Amino acid sequence: MAINPHVELISIGEELLIGKIANTNAQFLARRIVSLGGRVRRITVVGDDVDVIAETIRESLNRKPDLIITTGGLGPTFDDKTLEGIAKGLGRSLVLDVKALNMIKEHYAHLSRERGQKYEFTPARLKMAKIPEGSSALHNPVGTAPGVLIKLDGGFLVALPGVPSEMEAIFEESIAPIIRNLSKSVFHEKSLRVEGIFESDLAPLIDVAMRENATVYVKSHPKMEEGRGYIELHLTTSSETLEKAKESIERTAERLRELIEQKGGSIVPQGTP
Amino acid sequence: MAINPHVELISIGEELLIGKIANTNAQFLARRIVSLGGRVRRITVVGDDVDVIAETIRESLNRKPDLIITTGGLGPTFDDKTLEGIAKGLGRSLVLDVKALNMIKEHYAHLSRERGQKYEFTPARLKMAKIPEGSSALHNPVGTAPGVLIKLDGGFLVALPGVPSEMEAIFEESIAPIIRNLSKSVFHEKSLRVEGIFESDLAPLIDVAMRENATVYVKSHPKMEEGRGYIELHLTTSSETLEKAKESIERTAERLRELIEQKGGSIVPQGTP
Repeated sequence: MAINPHVELISIGEELLIGKIANTNAQFLARRIVSLGGRVRRITVVGDDVDVIAETIRESLNRKPDLIITTGGLGPTFDDKTLEGIAKGLGRSLVLDVKALNMIKEHYAHLSRERGQKYEFTPARLKMAKIPEGSSALHNPVGTAPGVLIKLDGGFLVALPGVPSEMEAIFEESIAPIIRNLSKSVFHEKSLRVEGIFESDLAPLIDVAMRENATVYVKSHPKMEEGRGYIELHLTTSSETLEKAKESIERTAERLRELIEQKGGSIVPQGTP
Repeated sequence: MAINPHVELISIGEELLIGKIANTNAQFLARRIVSLGGRVRRITVVGDDVDVIAETIRESLNRKPDLIITTGGLGPTFDDKTLEGIAKGLGRSLVLDVKALNMIKEHYAHLSRERGQKYEFTPARLKMAKIPEGSSALHNPVGTAPGVLIKLDGGFLVALPGVPSEMEAIFEESIAPIIRNLSKSVFHEKSLRVEGIFESDLAPLIDVAMRENATVYVKSHPKMEEGRGYIELHLTTSSETLEKAKESIERTAERLRELIEQKGGSIVPQGTP
């Protein structure tokens, strides 16, 4: 394997092919993968068609990536065809998975209690628990459809939902650690505590700093401590050497400080009361 | 050929693979192609690598689309490899094209005059005039690198620059008419005159109306008439029948009227003084 594991993204959904939305899922994944020490080599966008998805999976496997990530098409409706396509591409069947079933049941039971509605397990919901033979369901911390992880000869195939918040949550919980583990590059991270600026005013500054420092990923987390709000910025990167990784993080942190101070905010030492 | 010509997009550039930018060029093209009666079947994003571009072109040709559009990699720098990749994929050579050469010369001569600089024709500039054998250079109304059009057996291959304004300008001038001509569906269009609202306030309303009416493309043009500013909205769509096309246009126009009036603007009959 190369220093940077080779990743292919397959984005599935008609809404991308008619230009209803831009492929921001692919952008998020590409950024995160770079910061974790991986490398996206190809992004393919196709529609919700079982044969096309199967063909795309086979083509991708032929290029022998370390990881294939699909997004979209895991939901309960008839046009969510990703798992059927993946199963066909791999020559496997779809089987009812007990772990996936329990995840989905729990989610709907919880929603039903909250809404005081009768709990029903419909065929549409059952559909989401049918995953390719030999794969494992991945916990979805913020939605219904579980992600799916398949260990293949020499690599992994992961299916994530198309809803950005669900895709990101499953990625962070289950996939980021795999990429970091596959990567031979050195990972480095740093947290900054920001005060005196709204998160919405901070967002465009983060975009500027990330555009200028493409290998560093910056995530903001609003926090509260003893009744006082602040924002934690978490910077992550990967590089061939620890020196280079540290240098990228420091350069990005310095740029953020500059941009934040221009807007009247400040970066304060961590843990300052 | 189907009613809707089958289009594949190939987006070339490392900045897409590291997530530096979202693929908004593909989104623009997909929207416009739908409104002109075409249909995007696949979008592939790859890096600036001659062999990978050549392979992607061959794979795409095997699926026999009516039109392939590449974006990116036409510039003067060493990492702009699209034409070399296309030439290799088609088994053709790159040849110096007199028409392309004149377009580029004219552009730089004009820039040099404007800036009072000496006019120079560098090897980097000459590079942009080397296009695949048997192709034609397409006029770039807003930048330097010409687009490239190649007529193939049963289809077309077009290479557009990655800079959005240049890509859009060449598309509108040279490619939109080809798609409209290939399409067997019925094209319909309408113009609206909008007053009492800034173009920047109108932009998000257009986005809402287009998201709700995915087959209709809406373009705004700021205009001036006898010292009075207004915005012309141009709505275009394609459908199987004229009735359906008209219906989509009217629904979108009505929605736009609603949104614009909520913001204090109005749609006035065309030509009103």
